[in-house]
Amino acid sequence: MAIRAIFFDIDNTLYDSSKLTSMARRNSVLAMIDAGLSLPEEKILKDLNRIIEEYGPNYGKHYDELLKKYGRSDVRIVAAGVVAYEHTKIAYLKPFPRVVSTLMELKKRYKLAVVSNGLAIKQWEKLVGLGLHHLFDVVITSEECRCEKPRAEIFQAGLRALKVEASESVMVGDRYDVDIVGAKKAGLHTVQLKKDGGKGPYEITSFAQLIEAIEVLENEQLSEM
Amino acid sequence: MAIRAIFFDIDNTLYDSSKLTSMARRNSVLAMIDAGLSLPEEKILKDLNRIIEEYGPNYGKHYDELLKKYGRSDVRIVAAGVVAYEHTKIAYLKPFPRVVSTLMELKKRYKLAVVSNGLAIKQWEKLVGLGLHHLFDVVITSEECRCEKPRAEIFQAGLRALKVEASESVMVGDRYDVDIVGAKKAGLHTVQLKKDGGKGPYEITSFAQLIEAIEVLENEQLSEM
Repeated sequence: MAIRAIFFDIDNTLYDSSKLTSMARRNSVLAMIDAGLSLPEEKILKDLNRIIEEYGPNYGKHYDELLKKYGRSDVRIVAAGVVAYEHTKIAYLKPFPRVVSTLMELKKRYKLAVVSNGLAIKQWEKLVGLGLHHLFDVVITSEECRCEKPRAEIFQAGLRALKVEASESVMVGDRYDVDIVGAKKAGLHTVQLKKDGGKGPYEITSFAQLIEAIEVLENEQLSEM
Repeated sequence: MAIRAIFFDIDNTLYDSSKLTSMARRNSVLAMIDAGLSLPEEKILKDLNRIIEEYGPNYGKHYDELLKKYGRSDVRIVAAGVVAYEHTKIAYLKPFPRVVSTLMELKKRYKLAVVSNGLAIKQWEKLVGLGLHHLFDVVITSEECRCEKPRAEIFQAGLRALKVEASESVMVGDRYDVDIVGAKKAGLHTVQLKKDGGKGPYEITSFAQLIEAIEVLENEQLSEM
């Protein structure tokens, strides 16, 4: 069966989410020190990371909690942290090299969709910030689907939305345990983005290799028919 | 009595808050149209303005309410509006010309503080975004004081925080009914920033004239002694 649809993960697939997060947290710590928080940079960063892990990424008061931990309450310092985080986020929210050109090329031949764990508004804000919101026909989020990757249901919701079969579809993502395992469970083909080097045509090290991987997959499908 | 402290309003005094708001709303409307909201620009803008007025500026879901009004619910459009608003806000959050140099000059001789209606975190985020958070000794917000300009109490909280007398203090603001009336009630001297031209030395048309206005005030105080 020919490929008709390609599904994408967002974080660390379309853009460097790990770098954004670490730079934004680091800059927020530096800004808080500048605004009067007199503690070692590495200690604050460690405490901030722990608080974000404990309260989850969508909690709105990480910086207040951090200061509370130090027995302080200083809106100047909180504001300095928040603003530095937000500005850094905007600066680093840029697609990986070749993402835009590759998606535009793929869009000529395939339906494109996103399957992402997270809040719908947050994921859409990322796509808008990345300038990619015009390129996807459908965006499926775990919030709207009420199920998270690697559950097969969220991929099945994507297939229904695009009106395609699993065997006609490819999932592209960076996380084996979440994107690849889940998509395989739902019967999709998969391409894994693996920075540290992949084995075989369906493990790629950069987005630039995606078109070639899809072509290999198409040819394999044809030869099986 | 010699002048010892100068209090400042934020919006339309330290930066062009009206322009920021109108540009950010306009750009958010254009982004929503681009993301698929097929209605006339001026109509959407009018409806958005009405919703922000109705729900207040600190409500988090203006864009959801706007779409609900049109019988729609589309996270793509909401996200496009939110991101355009935020990016435009950052681009326009810049001090008026001469604000930084004037504050640095005044800081050599006077204590500087802010007296502002609004949420503490929001006002501090503005000061951090403006790069002015190091220049003020104290920031009094209506949220923390539990009283708003033009009430005398909020100015009195400022006087207490800086340990100065009303007669030793000047309030600088753009709104006659809020900043000037309130500060006069509390016994402070006042300088009004009036874009459309002022009468006399205590109504200035730009921040660049502030140092001269304070000097006139100082001399007048000396001659009365």
